[in-house]
Amino acid sequence: MLQVMSASSALRLLEEEIKPPPVPVQTLPLPAALGRIAAEDIRCSEIIPPFDRSTVDGYALHARDSFGAGEGQPARLRLKGQVEMGKEPDFCLKAGETAYVPTGGCLPTGADAMVMLEYSEDVGDGYIYLYKAAAPGNHIIFAGEDAAPDQVLVKQYQQLQPQQIGLLAAAGITALRVLPPLRVGVLSSGDELVDIDTTPEGGQIRDVNSYLLAALLAQAGAQPRRYGIARDDAATLLRLSEAALGECDMLLLSGGSSVGQQDHTQWVLENLPDSRLLLHGLAVKPGKPTLLALAGGKPVFGLPGHPLSAYFICRIFVLRAVRLLQGQQTEPPPRITARLSQNYPSNGGREEYLPLALVQGPEGWLARPVFNKSGLISVLKQADGYTRIDREAEGLAKGQLIEVELF
Amino acid sequence: MLQVMSASSALRLLEEEIKPPPVPVQTLPLPAALGRIAAEDIRCSEIIPPFDRSTVDGYALHARDSFGAGEGQPARLRLKGQVEMGKEPDFCLKAGETAYVPTGGCLPTGADAMVMLEYSEDVGDGYIYLYKAAAPGNHIIFAGEDAAPDQVLVKQYQQLQPQQIGLLAAAGITALRVLPPLRVGVLSSGDELVDIDTTPEGGQIRDVNSYLLAALLAQAGAQPRRYGIARDDAATLLRLSEAALGECDMLLLSGGSSVGQQDHTQWVLENLPDSRLLLHGLAVKPGKPTLLALAGGKPVFGLPGHPLSAYFICRIFVLRAVRLLQGQQTEPPPRITARLSQNYPSNGGREEYLPLALVQGPEGWLARPVFNKSGLISVLKQADGYTRIDREAEGLAKGQLIEVELF
Repeated sequence: MLQVMSASSALRLLEEEIKPPPVPVQTLPLPAALGRIAAEDIRCSEIIPPFDRSTVDGYALHARDSFGAGEGQPARLRLKGQVEMGKEPDFCLKAGETAYVPTGGCLPTGADAMVMLEYSEDVGDGYIYLYKAAAPGNHIIFAGEDAAPDQVLVKQYQQLQPQQIGLLAAAGITALRVLPPLRVGVLSSGDELVDIDTTPEGGQIRDVNSYLLAALLAQAGAQPRRYGIARDDAATLLRLSEAALGECDMLLLSGGSSVGQQDHTQWVLENLPDSRLLLHGLAVKPGKPTLLALAGGKPVFGLPGHPLSAYFICRIFVLRAVRLLQGQQTEPPPRITARLSQNYPSNGGREEYLPLALVQGPEGWLARPVFNKSGLISVLKQADGYTRIDREAEGLAKGQLIEVELF
Repeated sequence: MLQVMSASSALRLLEEEIKPPPVPVQTLPLPAALGRIAAEDIRCSEIIPPFDRSTVDGYALHARDSFGAGEGQPARLRLKGQVEMGKEPDFCLKAGETAYVPTGGCLPTGADAMVMLEYSEDVGDGYIYLYKAAAPGNHIIFAGEDAAPDQVLVKQYQQLQPQQIGLLAAAGITALRVLPPLRVGVLSSGDELVDIDTTPEGGQIRDVNSYLLAALLAQAGAQPRRYGIARDDAATLLRLSEAALGECDMLLLSGGSSVGQQDHTQWVLENLPDSRLLLHGLAVKPGKPTLLALAGGKPVFGLPGHPLSAYFICRIFVLRAVRLLQGQQTEPPPRITARLSQNYPSNGGREEYLPLALVQGPEGWLARPVFNKSGLISVLKQADGYTRIDREAEGLAKGQLIEVELF
């Protein structure tokens, strides 16, 4: 019998045990790859930008021709020509010469700096008067400054955010190989459960958790598949779990919370083909009755039945497993710092997840604990996020600075 | 000629001027509504949960029967029966009686508390011995505690997060009316631009911005439409803008940054049918050459040409307009607090957006400024977020606590 495990040990266990499996990759056009995970390093094959570009409207020059120039003492340079947007200049600049270049325009060969239009004067005598000295490199983006051939633009297993899409667009990468969305099965069980389109009769309750879990998974970029509600019978549950695992990369068993139901879930986790039980109970509140096995290398979670418990365990542990299966070792930091509005006692021994409502105050965020029972789902409606209370902590004090993870 | 406007004035202006238009609504099945905006208040029509539920495995009782019970002094109650999961008990509890109820089970009429299994003893003599006193309400979720008829579960214009999906599932709401995704047109212009599948020739550059902007819009839940690259000719740009506005709720003109291109964009914004120029330049860095008009009530932005400038203006102002058009008045708080790794001078007079790389240190997050030129896109690859430096600030000091908004 495995011991109940602390939250930090459980997260370490996930990191050690869960590896991205070899999966077939998908090739997508660049815009469709937003939010997906790169299947391989993506390298640049060009010099970006391909030429020295001006970042201002103004005059290109040899910087040294402007040394000593100032408000009362302009540098006088012969106007050689004008660069048109989108065209390569058909002349080059010698010492003593200048040319107009618009923002984004290509610098003529020879020029190594720009002086902004507002520091120039054109009196029509064929010369331009520049009232400011320029240092070499002023107001220029040099060829290759954004990226150079063979440079890695996006790493394998990196998620493609808008900024990566922009960078790949700049490099002319119109399609790329990404991981397919992770398929996660959600199978509910419990004789008291009915689907949400059914009006519960005496003693029955709607199957909230599979919708809640599927939404959390979808929001995290995975592809949830609901497998409906199994009757609370261990053999049936095992058969349905095996079938679901055949089609998915990971499986969540959303069981009931009663002792009998938990026993069934544990039995299923132990009896799936090639299965190894890793976790049997978590020292957290809410969410203690959490189970985890690897079956044929695929994670199978047994989740607590209370909706609030299921929500937290899914956010903190299941979504961590989703990211690990997609090669993402580092965690995003979606946290804010807030001041607690009141004392909050904690019974210790278990890491506790406390839902909080946030109010913007004059000195930053104020966090108010939301009264909760883990069997309620409506608690989440009033909360903006939650904090983790360390299992060693006696509680939290009014005014204490805490880290809040946002919903 | 309008004045250059501060960032805070511009955001206030957006709030005053941009209202959600009357739009046709869409009806979607519950799981598909994730991330969408509710078109109307969604009310509950039932009592949730529909009966008093136990949150533990244990024994139901009249709490008063256990008063005075303790470790050495059990309360002795006659075992009336056992509640099955998913069934309404066919008996009620009188004083002096008890019944086994599993977690999630329906309490028999008369019972007002639960005592957990671990505090009970069943020696088989028809009585249950309870070694703990219970107060009325202990370990029970009462009927209606999650939601009651006519209670608003989701407000109009609220975004549907997983927790809302769960709550609506509990209420048996299988389909709901949501706003259609906001259609935002993106039209690039500039004689130097070529599409990303083309290798730029001398002086040309790929149209990065329309892909970057489309990705930011898609990530925010809008539906971007790229209208390609217009030649830098005011009349053509006007004609294409009018056509795009006919199909969209908002339009972004991603122009070049040169004075000539900005003049064209401004002329277009002034000459669109029923148009009113609201904003002509922002006192921010980067992003100064930003324009905004309302044309027939639809926002039309003229965005700066530098990718980094376009990125920040889109995140801070365009996405704010997207949310306002969908009735979302309040802003999400996606910020963390970090300590700056070094002094950073700021030239003042303009709100500045400084990209930062984050490192988790022993005392929380450390933020390191990322050297940047607004013409580069690769800067965003190294940064995890950015901070806003107030226009009045002289700069930031090493060790100073700053708010970082995450990418």
